[in-house]
Amino acid sequence: MQSAFLEKIRTIEVKEQSIPSPASDEVLVKIRAVGLCGSDIHYYEDGKIGDFIVEKPIILGHEAAGEIIELGSNVEGLKKGQRVAIEPGKTCGACVHCQSGRYNLCKKVEFLATPPYDGAFCQYITMRSDLVFPMPDEMSYETGALIEPFSVGLHACSRGEITAGDTVLILGMGPIGLMTAAAAKIHGAGLIIGVDLEQGRLDKAKELGADRVINIKAESVEEKILEFTNGVGVDVAIETAGSPAALNSMISGVRRGGKAVIVGMSSKDEAAMNIAQIINKEMDLRGVFRYHHTYPKAIQLLSERKIDIEKIITDRFDSLQGVKAAFEKAIQDKKNTLKVMIYPNGR
Amino acid sequence: MQSAFLEKIRTIEVKEQSIPSPASDEVLVKIRAVGLCGSDIHYYEDGKIGDFIVEKPIILGHEAAGEIIELGSNVEGLKKGQRVAIEPGKTCGACVHCQSGRYNLCKKVEFLATPPYDGAFCQYITMRSDLVFPMPDEMSYETGALIEPFSVGLHACSRGEITAGDTVLILGMGPIGLMTAAAAKIHGAGLIIGVDLEQGRLDKAKELGADRVINIKAESVEEKILEFTNGVGVDVAIETAGSPAALNSMISGVRRGGKAVIVGMSSKDEAAMNIAQIINKEMDLRGVFRYHHTYPKAIQLLSERKIDIEKIITDRFDSLQGVKAAFEKAIQDKKNTLKVMIYPNGR
Amino acid sequence: MQSAFLEKIRTIEVKEQSIPSPASDEVLVKIRAVGLCGSDIHYYEDGKIGDFIVEKPIILGHEAAGEIIELGSNVEGLKKGQRVAIEPGKTCGACVHCQSGRYNLCKKVEFLATPPYDGAFCQYITMRSDLVFPMPDEMSYETGALIEPFSVGLHACSRGEITAGDTVLILGMGPIGLMTAAAAKIHGAGLIIGVDLEQGRLDKAKELGADRVINIKAESVEEKILEFTNGVGVDVAIETAGSPAALNSMISGVRRGGKAVIVGMSSKDEAAMNIAQIINKEMDLRGVFRYHHTYPKAIQLLSERKIDIEKIITDRFDSLQGVKAAFEKAIQDKKNTLKVMIYPNGR
Amino acid sequence: MQSAFLEKIRTIEVKEQSIPSPASDEVLVKIRAVGLCGSDIHYYEDGKIGDFIVEKPIILGHEAAGEIIELGSNVEGLKKGQRVAIEPGKTCGACVHCQSGRYNLCKKVEFLATPPYDGAFCQYITMRSDLVFPMPDEMSYETGALIEPFSVGLHACSRGEITAGDTVLILGMGPIGLMTAAAAKIHGAGLIIGVDLEQGRLDKAKELGADRVINIKAESVEEKILEFTNGVGVDVAIETAGSPAALNSMISGVRRGGKAVIVGMSSKDEAAMNIAQIINKEMDLRGVFRYHHTYPKAIQLLSERKIDIEKIITDRFDSLQGVKAAFEKAIQDKKNTLKVMIYPNGR
Repeated sequence: MQSAFLEKIRTIEVKEQSIPSPASDEVLVKIRAVGLCGSDIHYYEDGKIGDFIVEKPIILGHEAAGEIIELGSNVEGLKKGQRVAIEPGKTCGACVHCQSGRYNLCKKVEFLATPPYDGAFCQYITMRSDLVFPMPDEMSYETGALIEPFSVGLHACSRGEITAGDTVLILGMGPIGLMTAAAAKIHGAGLIIGVDLEQGRLDKAKELGADRVINIKAESVEEKILEFTNGVGVDVAIETAGSPAALNSMISGVRRGGKAVIVGMSSKDEAAMNIAQIINKEMDLRGVFRYHHTYPKAIQLLSERKIDIEKIITDRFDSLQGVKAAFEKAIQDKKNTLKVMIYPNGR
Repeated sequence: MQSAFLEKIRTIEVKEQSIPSPASDEVLVKIRAVGLCGSDIHYYEDGKIGDFIVEKPIILGHEAAGEIIELGSNVEGLKKGQRVAIEPGKTCGACVHCQSGRYNLCKKVEFLATPPYDGAFCQYITMRSDLVFPMPDEMSYETGALIEPFSVGLHACSRGEITAGDTVLILGMGPIGLMTAAAAKIHGAGLIIGVDLEQGRLDKAKELGADRVINIKAESVEEKILEFTNGVGVDVAIETAGSPAALNSMISGVRRGGKAVIVGMSSKDEAAMNIAQIINKEMDLRGVFRYHHTYPKAIQLLSERKIDIEKIITDRFDSLQGVKAAFEKAIQDKKNTLKVMIYPNGR
Repeated sequence: MQSAFLEKIRTIEVKEQSIPSPASDEVLVKIRAVGLCGSDIHYYEDGKIGDFIVEKPIILGHEAAGEIIELGSNVEGLKKGQRVAIEPGKTCGACVHCQSGRYNLCKKVEFLATPPYDGAFCQYITMRSDLVFPMPDEMSYETGALIEPFSVGLHACSRGEITAGDTVLILGMGPIGLMTAAAAKIHGAGLIIGVDLEQGRLDKAKELGADRVINIKAESVEEKILEFTNGVGVDVAIETAGSPAALNSMISGVRRGGKAVIVGMSSKDEAAMNIAQIINKEMDLRGVFRYHHTYPKAIQLLSERKIDIEKIITDRFDSLQGVKAAFEKAIQDKKNTLKVMIYPNGR
Repeated sequence: MQSAFLEKIRTIEVKEQSIPSPASDEVLVKIRAVGLCGSDIHYYEDGKIGDFIVEKPIILGHEAAGEIIELGSNVEGLKKGQRVAIEPGKTCGACVHCQSGRYNLCKKVEFLATPPYDGAFCQYITMRSDLVFPMPDEMSYETGALIEPFSVGLHACSRGEITAGDTVLILGMGPIGLMTAAAAKIHGAGLIIGVDLEQGRLDKAKELGADRVINIKAESVEEKILEFTNGVGVDVAIETAGSPAALNSMISGVRRGGKAVIVGMSSKDEAAMNIAQIINKEMDLRGVFRYHHTYPKAIQLLSERKIDIEKIITDRFDSLQGVKAAFEKAIQDKKNTLKVMIYPNGR
């Protein structure tokens, strides 16, 4: 089988490997679709994200769906040929966080495409059987792969406790922001306001759930929020841009007693925050780190509620040979590239 | 102006009255549409509901919308000609419940059409200005009137903490059950199961949000729930039928650790409940009494999300002279009558 | 080693067994103190509890503490000679309930002294290492054993979300009710009202946390609750008696918008409940099934806060030969017997 | 009667005024004890706090208790001679925040000693009757006055959702930090860690609830927290110092998935926060602005649970003539001054 390795910064090499055999509690999955994520791009460009450093060639890609080819000896409830979405984080199941219902906080997690663990820009992969989720026949592999970023959006809404009728502000209309807009809509948000500086992304936001958009190149975020919310501010603001300016818009955009959710990682650890407003408005701020328990829920919602999250796909590459081009497209044409989908075994 | 009085059991008389003048904090509203509710029917048929007894002629009807005709001297933020939905419960605003955010528990509430307070089967009514909610131009008066039962549905979902992806069972597909189905859908329920014994109501349920239906005349509720939820049971069950049998289906239908919400009032205060299951499944049960803070939220959702709750209207009467016929239709053709709408000032 | 077997109803036989060897993830514990629980008495008297039927001789007892004698090959973080409290439920760790933080709902649980699993009325026992919790030197083995029933009290308070200043009603002042009173006090309850029909239990309740008591033989529960709460009713009521009458006092004693917690199992599955009050007061009812994550918390609280839960011990037997006498004392002198403690290896 | 006016910065003048008459919904209270708060000192030293500017002579002091002297014509449930604690914030009761249960967010609040509203450094004051809370006979006026800062502590614990067994870190052992420690203990915290740089305050902290203390002059906060929590970090951290350094200790001291509560206002609106940790640990941050619904709860707890919050009083002045000296003592001997109590009508 073929795998696309990041050999060094900005260098992808497709190499032959032998197809792995599933352990007794694993399945072997033929990867049908795998998305390119912002974190993949960070590793490709910088060779690291925070403390995670690429020290040897690594296979990137962690938004994947495929077909079960082989089952480990102890695997039950799954079968060959089954179409599955892959949850990329293998958590320990035994620590206090796993046992408390927040397995996303597990310190022993092995996450696809996070050094030193390989990812899914390859033709076959073995996964622990509880991390592959059967999809209904009518759900595409692309949608299956997109459940990963959609999960971040669902979890962000969950952390913000978005409920029917809430007004929601989402800062940053990249893939995570767009998935969050779609998730906010399914959570019953009564008004979704999307913010970005690229009009193309704002147009896409309207397709995916935003009721109003603010282009920060042309408009004052603060003024427009007040206009859209009758001078009140939003119930929940979600920052997905990873920008200090957006953090401040998040805080100032929230109504007294409202909630702010921080999803977007910035290049710097610290940012100046308006503590006085956090106190005076008695706000709640909540961090978001990945997600937990979202896959079954997402599959249920996407199939039963017909949310077309594939709309965020802007580019497609039909083989692993396209991985390098995919990265370069995402970097050099940031403006027009939302989600790039790779098909390691063709379309 | 004309008002339809319940003179005695099953006797409606339309009488002339002078149009009331709004107090300084009130508005005068010309009633454009008003729905007939199950509680109205109870008073019409039995002359009482629990401790609330009709002791003198009363104007029934509490699901109303209309047009502002006159403003009290201190009223701000409203204007003549404005189209408004009317929240029927005037609470004290000062008690521990009002001040804690649960004004529906206020003991001093004056609720339209609940003895000794008159309701809205009349041409004009005065209301405290904070109880009339402006509707957008494109929202019909019928929808405005239906916000009242829709509020019960929204509050039931809120009490059940329904969130994206939850499986929801709703027992009873009368108007409240149907409004709850619509509300559950907007709360992001991943699967909504409606239960009734009338196929017509189940068909309507599918139009209003139910994904699956169970006809208890022909099917086992327990078996079908397990079938629809892969043997797990639902996350949240909501009882709107006011029937002891439905209470038991509610309890048995909920998954371990799930929630049950009781909305439907029965004719008897007590019912046998399976306490062993409540303990063994460590369930949460929650009562629902009316609603609070739902009107602005409902208007936002109904206008922004285009939920067509008017689908539950089965009958229309164009004047107060139709009130008696409306009651009789509802009683004698229960099977085919969901919501009857009265237009005291014509359509 | 010796073990006390329930051979048949009301027949205990102490037999010789070989000391078991711990598996790789287990420890061998020398039992120092083990309490007699109401469920043990049910098995002793009736041979069953609900669907759990004693079909072959069984060792009862699940409230235990002891000393680690031997460690399995893979056990880390524990050592020989360590004094430990034993959590009696071995859950699977992998099901949806275990992974959601509510492992007490695990269907695969193997619980000490619940058929077909043996308990701790024996001299040595093997336990999975994550189910033994080191106790500080100054904590007695009796307290260690009592963490089990105290855990039920802590969990009941947690389910009732008792917080500082809450008024709390506890129905039934048996061991579970008394442990719940102690737990409610540590949760910050501002007023704790204990109810029972035995004055001795009410006196003990005052020692363990109750601020007021009601003897239902002599006083009206409803009247006294109103007196103690200025006519309001309690914030949280907890039923530990397993009696239909207490269930009704629970419902009527709760204030509008308050919470009721059901802990006590009755001999009958069903009980008549006042649904009208549940709706009209918009109450929350919550079942309690055992507990989860309480052991570390209990050890922290009992050592740091000096709560003397040993006060509930009324009887002590210094060897397994006393097990039969312990059961008979509990049955024949119910009035004066709260908690009986057995010392399988002497005191 | 006499009143102590802040005439200009650092200038107090005691002047004669006529005793006010209570309006129909008010009572006249003879002030028996009133505490000096940090905000009073800010006005005394700087003439302003943020946007609140002293533009004309003002009476400071908002932590007060006294005796009812006269009742307005409509006041019910209170009587002459009654000893009462005074809640200093008169909120509107009608806005969305008042009606949602969070009246501390009311924008129309009139708060004692916050420009332009006068406070309680005077002999008599009129208050709306719902803002005076009867105290039991055995509760001192000093304790009654201290309910105000204790309320901040209770609310901080409530915002941090502290429950039985939680480990709690409190940064800053000034009066608010100390009151928070006492409140955390009554909330059932299993371990309370106090942090300050003055050993005298840390000694007082131990008297008021802290189980462990860290002197940041001599010890590393981060290391000690890990030591006290077995390397885990605390469940809840509360910042009361208003210092950027403490904000960072707060964030780093919290365990993965833990909560941080911000109470302390700094002189600067903005502070650098470690956003990466907030995300990676998926923390919750919550602002605290004053308090709501704490007075009845505090009175219940202080009388029933015998918490001796008077221990924070370090200085007493027996007349309004001492107000200037009180301010100067607090400013010039910050190290040894915790709470100064004034007795406008003598002791």
